Amino acid sequence: MRLVWALLMTILVMATTTAEQESQVLGLMPWPENVKTVPGSMRFIVENSFSVSVPANADRHLRKAVAIFLDDLRRHTGSLPLDFAFAEAEKGQLQISIEHASKEIQELGEDESYTLEVTPSAANLKASTTLGAMRGLQTFLQLVEVTRQGFALPTVVIQDKPRFPWRGLMIDSSRHFTPIDVIKRNLDGMAAVKLNVFHWHLSDNQGFRVESLRFPKLHEMGSDGLYYTQAQVREIISYARDRGIRVVPEFDMPGHSTSWFVGYPDLASGPGPYSVERKWGVFDPAMDPTRESTYKFLNEFIGEMAKLFPDQFFHIGGDEVNGKQWDANPRIQQFMHAHSLKNDAELQAYFTERVQKIVAKHGKTMEGWDEILHPDFPKDIIIQSWRGQKSLADAAQQGYRGLLSSGYYLDLMSPTSAHYAVDPFTGPTAGLADADKQKILGGEACMWAEYVSAENIDSRIWPRMAAIAERLWSPQSVTDLDSMYARMDGISRWLDAYDLTHNSARRLMLQRMAGTADVSALRTLADFVEPVKGYSRSDLASSEPTALTPLNRLVDAVQPESLGARRFSVQVDKFISGPIRPGAELEIRSTLTKWRDNDIQFRALAENSSFLQETLPISHDLSVLGAAGLEALDYMDRGEKAPDSWKSQQITLAQAAIQPRAQLILMIAAPVQKLIQASAGEKPTELLLPKTAQ
Amino acid sequence: MRLVWALLMTILVMATTTAEQESQVLGLMPWPENVKTVPGSMRFIVENSFSVSVPANADRHLRKAVAIFLDDLRRHTGSLPLDFAFAEAEKGQLQISIEHASKEIQELGEDESYTLEVTPSAANLKASTTLGAMRGLQTFLQLVEVTRQGFALPTVVIQDKPRFPWRGLMIDSSRHFTPIDVIKRNLDGMAAVKLNVFHWHLSDNQGFRVESLRFPKLHEMGSDGLYYTQAQVREIISYARDRGIRVVPEFDMPGHSTSWFVGYPDLASGPGPYSVERKWGVFDPAMDPTRESTYKFLNEFIGEMAKLFPDQFFHIGGDEVNGKQWDANPRIQQFMHAHSLKNDAELQAYFTERVQKIVAKHGKTMEGWDEILHPDFPKDIIIQSWRGQKSLADAAQQGYRGLLSSGYYLDLMSPTSAHYAVDPFTGPTAGLADADKQKILGGEACMWAEYVSAENIDSRIWPRMAAIAERLWSPQSVTDLDSMYARMDGISRWLDAYDLTHNSARRLMLQRMAGTADVSALRTLADFVEPVKGYSRSDLASSEPTALTPLNRLVDAVQPESLGARRFSVQVDKFISGPIRPGAELEIRSTLTKWRDNDIQFRALAENSSFLQETLPISHDLSVLGAAGLEALDYMDRGEKAPDSWKSQQITLAQAAIQPRAQLILMIAAPVQKLIQASAGEKPTELLLPKTAQ
Repeated sequence: MRLVWALLMTILVMATTTAEQESQVLGLMPWPENVKTVPGSMRFIVENSFSVSVPANADRHLRKAVAIFLDDLRRHTGSLPLDFAFAEAEKGQLQISIEHASKEIQELGEDESYTLEVTPSAANLKASTTLGAMRGLQTFLQLVEVTRQGFALPTVVIQDKPRFPWRGLMIDSSRHFTPIDVIKRNLDGMAAVKLNVFHWHLSDNQGFRVESLRFPKLHEMGSDGLYYTQAQVREIISYARDRGIRVVPEFDMPGHSTSWFVGYPDLASGPGPYSVERKWGVFDPAMDPTRESTYKFLNEFIGEMAKLFPDQFFHIGGDEVNGKQWDANPRIQQFMHAHSLKNDAELQAYFTERVQKIVAKHGKTMEGWDEILHPDFPKDIIIQSWRGQKSLADAAQQGYRGLLSSGYYLDLMSPTSAHYAVDPFTGPTAGLADADKQKILGGEACMWAEYVSAENIDSRIWPRMAAIAERLWSPQSVTDLDSMYARMDGISRWLDAYDLTHNSARRLMLQRMAGTADVSALRTLADFVEPVKGYSRSDLASSEPTALTPLNRLVDAVQPESLGARRFSVQVDKFISGPIRPGAELEIRSTLTKWRDNDIQFRALAENSSFLQETLPISHDLSVLGAAGLEALDYMDRGEKAPDSWKSQQITLAQAAIQPRAQLILMIAAPVQKLIQASAGEKPTELLLPKTAQ
Repeated sequence: MRLVWALLMTILVMATTTAEQESQVLGLMPWPENVKTVPGSMRFIVENSFSVSVPANADRHLRKAVAIFLDDLRRHTGSLPLDFAFAEAEKGQLQISIEHASKEIQELGEDESYTLEVTPSAANLKASTTLGAMRGLQTFLQLVEVTRQGFALPTVVIQDKPRFPWRGLMIDSSRHFTPIDVIKRNLDGMAAVKLNVFHWHLSDNQGFRVESLRFPKLHEMGSDGLYYTQAQVREIISYARDRGIRVVPEFDMPGHSTSWFVGYPDLASGPGPYSVERKWGVFDPAMDPTRESTYKFLNEFIGEMAKLFPDQFFHIGGDEVNGKQWDANPRIQQFMHAHSLKNDAELQAYFTERVQKIVAKHGKTMEGWDEILHPDFPKDIIIQSWRGQKSLADAAQQGYRGLLSSGYYLDLMSPTSAHYAVDPFTGPTAGLADADKQKILGGEACMWAEYVSAENIDSRIWPRMAAIAERLWSPQSVTDLDSMYARMDGISRWLDAYDLTHNSARRLMLQRMAGTADVSALRTLADFVEPVKGYSRSDLASSEPTALTPLNRLVDAVQPESLGARRFSVQVDKFISGPIRPGAELEIRSTLTKWRDNDIQFRALAENSSFLQETLPISHDLSVLGAAGLEALDYMDRGEKAPDSWKSQQITLAQAAIQPRAQLILMIAAPVQKLIQASAGEKPTELLLPKTAQ
């Protein structure tokens, strides 16, 4: 992570010179392949009488997509149910044409290209399939902006198609249950940024989340009552299909499967009884790969689920088997010996091969995490890499198709820029032959759910997901960070219209911590802290976090990335090294003063809140750094070099301030250190996060 | 309205001296009949292991109420689904006991009293019925506050019961359709403030909103496709019942019924065809009271609806028949002559009498608006007064039961204090004999829906509804305005947890108007303007508003009452007439400076927004008044009397500034005028709203 961090800072500095002009004008995300605007030209005004015509060859999915589009347009413009309408063919102000319908069951690799042309009097959307039309409708929505003439779109011609055919988001609904309405609003968000796969992680040690009619003890005993009925699953699949999104289910096996064993202990490799796991981590229980009864069970189970989930792909997990139950079971050891299976990896390969045959028998194509990679499978299976581009390159060279998830783990609390810098074709995959490159289908962001609840999950997914969606849709050359952050900021607010709570939940959570008191001092602090990165949250916890630990602390409420700290950092960099800009110092001073003076009010607030007690040292440091930054500016204003003793003392303070407390990092320590260094006539250096904070 | 306004100002000045000590400590609303706290005592801490036991005689409604309570407690504390639990009888930290279950179909007048005792180690809730337990659970929730020890309740003993047995909210789902989820979250809010009747206005000229199996053309042709299926109606009734709320349907007749005639023109008194009405107002179409076919239709329709809605009461509307279709129809005139019906009122009474018999035949008790009042009905019917306490007193004296809605019309955009001052026993009802007083059952707030959409309806209902709920629940002596406003402020934020959008929708709507620009200048203006009052919005419209007019302007987004303007007004009053308080002038100066400087930024914002163009003059006046207030303070600081010429000029500006523009009133003109007057050594006077703004 430290390397990535340093790399990012480099990119950040480089990026400012390559900002695309276009992207500062239009709030599109992902950025289309080709955009032509006519600056200063007339606009297309969206009147109340706006109408859309669908072509005669439209399938029901296109009609439904247009109905959803009209609803979305109403949301974004505050219009009423009776505003906007379908028009007769070729009479709408927006006319859609397609060459052919999309498949009834959405398939991997269907054509998603479209052309959208907007003139002052009409708009035309042409696509080869219904899916392409869906993507174009989202572009149309993102072009709508408030103007002096009302809601309007610029004159524009957009030709667009995705770089990768598989652009996904995985949600882990096992570790913490994800209510149906949360899934739905996230599908809305996914559609808005042109994602096309919802990978649903439905079972793990901490919960089995789907109703099984064949094996009811799976959900009855393995879910604490928190599961999706089959009717709800169908509802989600249909909701996703209406938005051009495939739903790929994952049932993780042979590890990550304790919740199965609560009701069916005979599936396991060790003696029961089992209970739903409450802790986080990798655990010993694993399915017994040596008994025929296991495959009989899986055959019936997969058969049931293969019918429930129409998608071609069936994800069997396969990750993180520690093998301890296998090692401890003499019968399994004997089996391995008898079948010349030399180690646990070979035993798992044996298991995966058996399961692959079952999956294939039920008409599906198997998908699994890196660990299932083995040269002897049919070449149609898909390897999802969580460990890096290396295993993706290996898979491609062995003839398998692959997906990148390494680098797109939303639970690691990385800044957007870090995810944005990750490309399926960097590192080991960059040198692949073209034919092998074709095998890399795209990627998926992963929302693992140790520390997300229904309340804060949206804020972990959004808006960072939009930047990953851009990486997977837009040309590889679209990399300008300033442009990305500017557009992401707009999209983040725009997504509020879908009831996504990435912005609103924070307000509620902060207010809850503040009680009835004025929340502003807390809001100021919250704007400049981030949760610790990677897996250090668990290390830093005073007691082991479990599935029962409430997620209502400041670390749960703040955004993974402090955009406020980023903006301040950019301001400081420009101030120190850029040309003199009138007002720049005043802005920085105003921010520093606010920080310096915030602690008094914050302490009063914390007096009556258990939640804020643990954050008192951070608030104190925000105040101290605010004062240090102001002193640094005073030295510079007086044209006086700050004394070494003062400088060393202040840098010590900054370095102390970046230490995690309450599992939070104060993100302004680094830019303030730069001010201190600059005031002492030193070249500013980066203040690196301590190891535990990464 | 002008009188009410002046009266309120008087109450405001009086009230500050009678604030109850208790109410400043506990955030309860409605305020209970009797509260005993032990200041400084230990608290009851809500741990993750918190549990509730229900008694052996609990009915399913009590179990369900406790399940909802636990969910609500999770929302208010940010806890997880596996936190908190049911406990075995008498083992919970909160123990509930009831004397008997509530009726399966909730009835008017069931005992809602309860006693809640909280000690540091346990809580006891005793009620005579399940309904009382529900009310007590809401009190428990409102007592939970964040403390230094975590979420906790104070040591307290509360004995409580409602003043009136009928405490309702009417929502008009006809003029604009109210989606199911909007109804549900408002039922959550109603339960939170102990309301017990949801009066559902389901048909009017602009839409017939319930599926009728017997007469499907009612919803098919009369609703634009926006109606509730019978399954959805049952879902709402069940959702309400789970929260101790009765659902009383209203089908308005014989007027307000154009939407019925679209599918069934023969019901009308004039020739068709009819279409769903798009305009607002009182229209001519009315049912034909002279044909037997009308009563045959109503008998079958009411029979169907009487089965769908289990409540004892059935509201038949009966308001605002202008009689024009009757006057114009010779056959009807002939009928009146033949039956010695002297005028339209007598014809309507004939109709109402027939309908009452139908309603009674289907086992229901009729309810209607003032206009149905007539001495010859059975004495069990209920008169809902929208025209004032006089008709309520008349009804009671004629032996009928009554409800007050006059004074509780949320669509009139009155300040909370105005609603709070309205009591069922003021004016003509105050002098009623005790036996007649018993007939006044309570009241209902009315949310008429000309200018509300799914997006802004919550902000028209909340938080003002909470103050009306207090008027109907709490002892008549609870009238302290400062206490009410302070508690309402807390409850308003607390209600955010139920996904009510009264606070959040405003943010989205303002951002939409501002586009991608920084919204803060707009927010500053929005904080200090209110929609025009009463029915003047329609008069002030540049073109006639209809059901198709989008509700996305600033007037639709701002709160009915500017609490910011109220606070400023109180500050100014204290500054001018109270003892000197250090810092008071600085606060006022800081606000005035913000206003003065806001216009530059606002104009830049308005440059690109059609929505803000119309509000430019208001922003300009905010700036002008900010400057005027600062000058007034300057005179006072210098101990100099402001010159008469300056004063007159500034007062002219203030008076111009209070004129409505864009259907908005700038609410700070009045307090700024006081500053101007004070600086000129004059006694401050109230600046009255112009007639069109009332």
